[in-house]
Parts: sequence; structure tokens; C-alpha cells
Amino acid sequence: MGASRRKFIRNTALAGAGISLAPNIMARPYQKRVDASGKLKVGIIGSGLRGQDHIDLLLRRKDCEVICIAEPDQVMLASTKKVFEGLDAKWPEIYDQGPHDYVRMLDKEKIDAVIIATPWEWHSQMAIAAMKAGVFTGVEVSGAFSLDECWELVNTHESTGTPLFFLENVCFRRDVMAVLNMVKKGLFGELIHLECGYQHDLRGVKFNDGITPYNSGVEFGDKGFSEAKWRTWHSLYRNGDLYPTHGIGPVAQWININRGNRMETLVSMASKSRGLHEYIINHPKGGPDHPNAKLEFRLGDKVTTMVKCTNGETIVLHHDTSLARPYSLGFRVQGTKGLWMDVNKKLHLEGTSPEHQWEDAATYLTQYDHDAWKAHEKDAEGAGHGGMDWFVTEAFVRCASEGTEPPFDVYDAASWMAITPLSEASIASGGMPQAIPDFTRGRWMSKK
Amino acid sequence: MGASRRKFIRNTALAGAGISLAPNIMARPYQKRVDASGKLKVGIIGSGLRGQDHIDLLLRRKDCEVICIAEPDQVMLASTKKVFEGLDAKWPEIYDQGPHDYVRMLDKEKIDAVIIATPWEWHSQMAIAAMKAGVFTGVEVSGAFSLDECWELVNTHESTGTPLFFLENVCFRRDVMAVLNMVKKGLFGELIHLECGYQHDLRGVKFNDGITPYNSGVEFGDKGFSEAKWRTWHSLYRNGDLYPTHGIGPVAQWININRGNRMETLVSMASKSRGLHEYIINHPKGGPDHPNAKLEFRLGDKVTTMVKCTNGETIVLHHDTSLARPYSLGFRVQGTKGLWMDVNKKLHLEGTSPEHQWEDAATYLTQYDHDAWKAHEKDAEGAGHGGMDWFVTEAFVRCASEGTEPPFDVYDAASWMAITPLSEASIASGGMPQAIPDFTRGRWMSKK
Repeated sequence: MGASRRKFIRNTALAGAGISLAPNIMARPYQKRVDASGKLKVGIIGSGLRGQDHIDLLLRRKDCEVICIAEPDQVMLASTKKVFEGLDAKWPEIYDQGPHDYVRMLDKEKIDAVIIATPWEWHSQMAIAAMKAGVFTGVEVSGAFSLDECWELVNTHESTGTPLFFLENVCFRRDVMAVLNMVKKGLFGELIHLECGYQHDLRGVKFNDGITPYNSGVEFGDKGFSEAKWRTWHSLYRNGDLYPTHGIGPVAQWININRGNRMETLVSMASKSRGLHEYIINHPKGGPDHPNAKLEFRLGDKVTTMVKCTNGETIVLHHDTSLARPYSLGFRVQGTKGLWMDVNKKLHLEGTSPEHQWEDAATYLTQYDHDAWKAHEKDAEGAGHGGMDWFVTEAFVRCASEGTEPPFDVYDAASWMAITPLSEASIASGGMPQAIPDFTRGRWMSKK
Repeated sequence: MGASRRKFIRNTALAGAGISLAPNIMARPYQKRVDASGKLKVGIIGSGLRGQDHIDLLLRRKDCEVICIAEPDQVMLASTKKVFEGLDAKWPEIYDQGPHDYVRMLDKEKIDAVIIATPWEWHSQMAIAAMKAGVFTGVEVSGAFSLDECWELVNTHESTGTPLFFLENVCFRRDVMAVLNMVKKGLFGELIHLECGYQHDLRGVKFNDGITPYNSGVEFGDKGFSEAKWRTWHSLYRNGDLYPTHGIGPVAQWININRGNRMETLVSMASKSRGLHEYIINHPKGGPDHPNAKLEFRLGDKVTTMVKCTNGETIVLHHDTSLARPYSLGFRVQGTKGLWMDVNKKLHLEGTSPEHQWEDAATYLTQYDHDAWKAHEKDAEGAGHGGMDWFVTEAFVRCASEGTEPPFDVYDAASWMAITPLSEASIASGGMPQAIPDFTRGRWMSKK
């Protein structure tokens, strides 16, 4: 499609937006939640290890306070308390009467914003409850269980007008943002092919001894601790890309998904499953006679998904969490004028790089370092995941306080999360292509 | 499947092999073609630039001679003559009466073996004619145009008993063979996922000025020279993985395809096509007004294919020949105990490498260097494609002379070449999975 035709469509769509959006018009779409003088009052749903990361980052700021926490697990509450004590912060109201006590918290507390950091299976119902309560909703990333669940998030946002901020931290990774800069400046030309994924040996996370979180045993579920309590069930019973957002989030930014482009179809394939079984039988606390050695894990050790986008780009997503391997999100950004890959930390730019040769990416990543990183390098120092978690908190608190649109909204959440059930469907059907719903109801065509 | 059950099946199949193979029993399956004292008499079909590489390697050997050439192009014959002169070799019989003169050559000449190095669209009919003539048949690699063509190769081999040697040189690449060594020693554990492909900026090969082969213009077809004469048509009219064998060949070795394993289904996806058009309009000899600027190239700049194997492995194949990029076959060999990747030249082996860390692959590739490379390093020096072409010639001449089975036979050729039409079918159908035929008629189950 030519640029002029694209512009025409966009203008036409914008002209009609006031009418077409009327039925879903948002009551108080992005209102300021606090005055310049006040502090953002934040509630936490889920103060497990990830929730405690969020609390730590929030408590270090002067523009917000954590006034309540919903968390049923006393062990996690005890370690949460240490975070508060370590930072001399006031211990907030606690809602620990079972896993549904967050409902009472949302009803009773006067909070401006909430962060949800619970097991995947709770994300959507909690986010929906928070949006219905009119609380600016931050929700941790995960894959969805069904398309209906994704639609319910979208519908709730549209009927309540409450913003949802999808807390995808990798979008704030320093190299990811530098590459976004380079993409916007056209250094790679027109983008053609992207790769990404989640390739992370989680065997020592999926299993532990029930007391310490990492690399300590072969137990999970009731006998596990932290993520091993819940995450491992998904490897036992599901087969698909269970955790697509750390990969697809950055890719979506680079190719403007839901903002002039969208993901149309996907196909997934899964390898056999061996890694988790072998981990159990080879672990000093496991062995072939351990009860967990009898389990048949359904998740293929390597799940690969291909996505086709409306503007013609292809995406390959890797999901690889049950084998011995170094951490890698496997990014590749390839356009008509060159490509960057993060596995070798190299790039090639036509006309700049020697012909047919790689160059180290480092000098370019420094040259095109994003302004946000330049400005906040010291603030981010020491924050989780190489500093990128600081940026998530910063963006979350700012959006909630100032009433600006979240960078990753409910439509992004729905379309990224939808990859999981669609990849499960594709694998279950022997590799049949699956249509990815347009959760924006066509508004992606005009949105920037 | 347990090892004992696998063995049982294999033994059963072997026990019945004498009967089940009877209808296709080979007349003179792998007879010696020359005495220890004599020289292998080789004919060449196609002495373009690739054919001349083969001739050069053959003429440097003492155990064979090139006695005839079928080549209709006088320019190519002139440069072929220089190869002979440079090596003081006798100029052979020439068959240059049009593209079909190879038929007369096969009929008239008493040759032991033939090497076919012609445009892709001629490979199968020439290989079939050579097999029917009872000449040990070496054929250069390509993708097929249809499954019928693959079957015809198989059927001709089975009805004539003539061996076919598929000349896949990358299987002899030094790192590929070292990794094969490591795979066989179990260093990666049970293999789970493989990646490979052909990622090679061929823009300067697909177009030239009609006189010099590389990077000299934007002409092709009748106005092009060497590969630009024919290869470019495939980018104009076809959309699929046009050249899968440099990737799938090594992968097939690593996971024993057609020898206890086979490729069952594939799915392909293609990006939009931009690279070749942009090359034409940006080239100093092209521009937006050049006639070729009006062409719409059908081949997506990036074609990705996923394959599922009977033993549960997944394979990702990359085809990427129209964009600015460094050469990379993109190998990844991943098993339960670790992985090797060639893009970063690193590996990780559980229990050996530091946990969650990459190590340089180089020391391992040296340690597990294949015996063939250790023995013939000096022989291979200076031969094409980093020396691996020497090994192809060596294997070809040995198999033909001694009557041993080709390492890559007609069943390998058929199944690797079949990826091309199947990927075209998958893309044309919006990503539908395609069944890969079992060209061995079940014999893969018992073959080693």
C-alpha cells in the first residue's frame, strides 16, 4: 500500500472516530489520579518474589506509597515485611484471608493504582476486578488461557474506561530501546523479519525443595516454593508458547503492532519433551524412583511459532525453558538495509558495515542509546533485570499519576497473550494456522 | 519407544528385507567401476562456473580423468578450456549441440561416472537419464519442482539399480563434521531441536551485467551471465524455500534422517518481497526507470520453514537470499545436554560449561575434529568453499570407483529436495501443514 493511500485511510478513520467509538466511550479515560503535591496510592495484589521486586522499586520513590497488599501466603508476607523494614516504610493494610481477599481490598481501600503479580491463572480475573473498581491497573505478563479471556480484558477496559498497563519489562531493555531508536531512524530500512523468544533454562525454577526458590530440588505444586508452586503445572499439562511476551513485546514496538500493523496468523510446532523428566531423574534429590519421575510433561522442550503480520513481516518466536542452555531472548531485527542479532551481539548495515561482514553492535547501541536510558542510567542502577524494571515502575507511576495512556495497553496485552492459546491450538491440530483476533476492532489501522 | 522395542522392530524389518525388496532388487547395485590400476572415467554435464570447480578438483587427482563434457555455452567452454590448460590435462570430447546433447554423450561415451552441474530445472531429467544409462550419477544440489519429480528419481534408481550421489558439500564442512562427531559421542544428549538454512546475500549473483558474474549490474535471464541467466527466474515466479539442502543436509546427518528417523510434516511462511526490487532501483546501473524495476518478485525476502520429525525433533530452516546480510547457514544443534550455535560460534554443555554460560566452540571443534579432516587437511587446502569441496570429490570418486554406497543417496536427495515444493504449497495455502512423503517406502525404519 502506498504512503498516500495509508494516510488517506488513517485520516478517514480518525474523522469517523468520534462516532464509531461512541458506544465504548470511556467514562474517565485517562484522568489524573493525584495532584502534583500528592503521592500515588498503590495497592499490591500478590507479594511473592516478583511482587516484592515491585514493592522495593515503589518504596524507593517519593511520588508513591504502597498502602495495601493482598497476599494469602504468610511466608511471602514475612519476606515482604523485611522489604518494608529495610526501607523504613510503613507496613500497609494486609488482606490475607485466602486468595480472593483482593476483592475485599479493592472494595475497601482508596487506591489510585494496583499492581498484580500473582500466578498466571489469576492475572485476568484480578485485572478485570481492578478495572471494574476503577483502579489504574498494572498487571504482570503471562500468556492467556483462552481468547475469551483476552476479549474479557478488552471488554472490561472499554466498558469501565479504566486503563490497563501491561507490565512488559523487556520493552525497556537498554539494547531493545536503542534498537527501537535505530528502527525509527530507518537504519534497518523497511523491516522484513523479526525473531524473539524466551529461551531460559527454568528447570531450577520449576522445581525446588519447597523452601528455597532456585536449584534446590525436584518438588513442585504443594511441595514447591514460589514459582515451582504453580508454574510447573503448565509444563505438565500444556503444550504451546506459554510465555510469549518478553519476545513479542519488543517486536511489537519495532513493527508498530496495533498501531498501523497487526499480527494476522500464527503456526506453532513443538518438539518432544525430555528436559524436565531428565532433570528429575538426574537430580541428587530426585532419581528414577522419585514420584515425579513418573510424570509425563506435555510441554515440548522447544516450541517454535511463526507469525505473519498485515504489513508483510514474519516473526519467529522461540520458547525453550526446559533444557540446559544460556539465557537468550534471541532477538533478530532484519530489514531491507541490514540486521541486528542479539545472540552474537552483531549487526550489519548496508553502506556502513563492510560488505557481507558483521560488526560489533556495541558501538551502535551506545550511539543510539535511548534518551530515557541516558537520563535515568543512575536511577536504574541496581534495579531488577539489568535496570529495566526501574523503567517499568517509572512509566507505571507516571501514567497512573498524570493520566497518560499506558505504553502497553489492554489491546497489546490481549494480542500478545493470545499467542499462547493459539499456539496450543496450532500444535494440537498438527500445525494448522490460527487466525489472531483483531482486539482493537479495526482501530489499529488509524492508531499511532 | 524403548531401545529394546526399537531393536526388535529393526531386526524384524531386516529379517523380511530379502523378500520385501525383491521387486526392486538392484541389478548391479554398487559394483566396482574401475580396477585398482585403472582410472575412473568421468563425464561432466554442465561446465559452467560450478562445473569448472568440479573439473578442477577431478583433474588434480590421479585416480580419475574427465573424458567428455556436455555444455552448450561457448563462453563457458572457453573458460573450461583454460582449466584444462592450466593443469596440462587432455581436452576431452565436447557435446555442445544444444542443451539436450548430454543424451548423445551418455549414449556414446564409455563413462563410469557423471557429474551434473546445470541450472536447477535440468537436474532431475539429467540424473534420470544418467541412471538409465547405468552411469554412477553425481548431481549438484537444488530444490525440486514437484513431488513427482522426487519420486521419479527414486523410481529410476530402484528400477535401474544405478546409485545416485547427491553432491551436498556442506555436510563435509569442518565444523559440521566435528559437531557430527560430538553428536555421535552424545555430548549434546538426545537431540531435540535443530536450526539451519541458507542465509546468503545473493543479490549480486542474481543480477549482473551479462559479462562478469558478480556484483556488476541488474540484468538477468538472457541478458545475465552464469547464475543470473537462470537462478533469478525462480525469485521472480516462486515463493518457498528454494534452496534447502545446505541446511537440511547436515541436520539430516545429525538426526539420522532416513536411517531410523524421518521428516514427517512441514509448515512454511514467507515475508513480503522488497530486497530484489530495491537492489535494482538503487544500483548505479539500475534505477527506478530500468525495465527490471517494474517486476514484482514473488519470493519473500525471508522464508521460514518448520519441520517435525518422527523421533520428535523440530527443525527450523531459514531461506534469506535477497537482503543485505553476512553469509550464515544459521546452524543450531540442541539436545538434552546442551547446544551449539554457529552464528555466535558458541556452545553450552551441561556439566562441562559454566552454568547458564556460553563457551567458545572453537576448542571443542578442534578437539572433536573429524578423522577425515585430520587426515586430509592439506589435500583440501585451497579447494572451494573452505576445503569442503575436496571432500565431496574424494567421496564421489571413491564411491564410484569402489562400488560403495553414496553417503547421500537418492532417498536423501528426494526428501531434502521435496522441501521446496512443499514449502511453496504451504505458503500458497496460508501456512497449512504439508506431509513429507516417505521416499524410502518404510525402509528408513531399519536402515542405519
